[in-house]
Amino acid sequence: MDETRMKTPISIVKIGGAFLEDPQRLDEVCRAFARMKGMRILVHGGGQRASRLSEDLGIAPRMVEGRRITDAQSLEVVTMVYAGWANKTLVACLQASGCNALGVSGADANLIRAAKRPVKAIDYGYVGDIEAIEVLTLKKLLSSGLVPVFSAITHDGSGQLLNTNADTIAAALACALSGDYHTRLYYCFEKQGVLRDIRDPASVITRMDQNLFKRLKAEGAIIQGMLPKLHNCFQALEGGVQEVFIGPPALLTDKASIFTELSL
Amino acid sequence: MDETRMKTPISIVKIGGAFLEDPQRLDEVCRAFARMKGMRILVHGGGQRASRLSEDLGIAPRMVEGRRITDAQSLEVVTMVYAGWANKTLVACLQASGCNALGVSGADANLIRAAKRPVKAIDYGYVGDIEAIEVLTLKKLLSSGLVPVFSAITHDGSGQLLNTNADTIAAALACALSGDYHTRLYYCFEKQGVLRDIRDPASVITRMDQNLFKRLKAEGAIIQGMLPKLHNCFQALEGGVQEVFIGPPALLTDKASIFTELSL
Repeated sequence: MDETRMKTPISIVKIGGAFLEDPQRLDEVCRAFARMKGMRILVHGGGQRASRLSEDLGIAPRMVEGRRITDAQSLEVVTMVYAGWANKTLVACLQASGCNALGVSGADANLIRAAKRPVKAIDYGYVGDIEAIEVLTLKKLLSSGLVPVFSAITHDGSGQLLNTNADTIAAALACALSGDYHTRLYYCFEKQGVLRDIRDPASVITRMDQNLFKRLKAEGAIIQGMLPKLHNCFQALEGGVQEVFIGPPALLTDKASIFTELSL
Repeated sequence: MDETRMKTPISIVKIGGAFLEDPQRLDEVCRAFARMKGMRILVHGGGQRASRLSEDLGIAPRMVEGRRITDAQSLEVVTMVYAGWANKTLVACLQASGCNALGVSGADANLIRAAKRPVKAIDYGYVGDIEAIEVLTLKKLLSSGLVPVFSAITHDGSGQLLNTNADTIAAALACALSGDYHTRLYYCFEKQGVLRDIRDPASVITRMDQNLFKRLKAEGAIIQGMLPKLHNCFQALEGGVQEVFIGPPALLTDKASIFTELSL
């Protein structure tokens, strides 16, 4: 018996924060997501807006290796921006497109429990590494026709909210669901896919496996922000996720001819 | 057959924004709410924090008759504060107390659809008057053991978020559920109940009906902020809500000896 054929497909879509900056692009990505068939989950951050709000409040944003350092003030800012403004703006936009979106953080229904990252060489502050996902609750929400929209906020179960990378949340959700569903993981951003040369938008790598990733990394061709994203992709594939894509929102409606497909 | 005896009880609890200002009081109110038996819903605003954030961003808050005037910038602020910071802080705190809280706005799962208030003498801006509540979805969430925590944000179904008074949301939810449940509506705030004399904390009115309300209103004994709250209380009772209380969080655990009970 072919198990994968029997599994219901589910799409987990991470969208980049840049789509939230422009109402027209937000509308486009929401329409594309709303038109997708079957069960699906949206995951988002809201990075640029959080940086702007921090600046407006006189809090200087600090980044190390593409990850935000989250002190108590910054945690409040990202909670406001990710779980508040970005999440509800997306939910309202999706509802207007006929998609029954339910905005959640990891704290809601205890969906994603995380542990504050231990302080080693870098103190990331209130950053959470995912420990457990409430798959049963998530399945109940999905099977009742709701479309969960995750902001990149988790909790430790003891009352502490934590900031968790949205790419990582998307990969972890996809892995957790891959036992019950045929999981497709999409990373949507403003480019056509992973570029061999960051200065050349036409240099999209259409298929990337771990060997190619290692080679390009050694050559220094993979830029800073793309490194953790690709790590998440390969971890997802190793964790049982069936299909992983990086590309533009047109990916979601099968209208993209150019994108990156990942394989082990 | 006594219909009221057959109905499952449900508690709808509105808490004042002041509890969110102090971690210890927040913890107290969350523990009291978590200890309540049976189905329940929490509703909150987050007013003072929204005003502070507005000030920090150089946006002057404007209030008319106890209601916030919501321009586009203010809508972003209240969405961030109510649906983001306040909602997720409460949800994380409730989860730590063993209560399976699910934070929502009215946009989530289309739970509360509202219409932008028409401009008459006052332009309230992006303020929403409630039009419809998705009772079926709400019942599904409740019966799966989840505890909805509503922030005071709604939507119009066409992509526009709206600011809706939290007291009004609590009353509207209680009314909408009173067909299916025995509904108890609690307004929890920092005082023991409705005061006959605002300067005397011992002057709590333990029972208030519409006649007494009218008399006190005519005497000018009911202060500004309490007027819309009491209007909501009586509208709830007229709308089928069985029990309405105003008092301290100790109300929730039957430990309060002094509070205000409303009746028609």
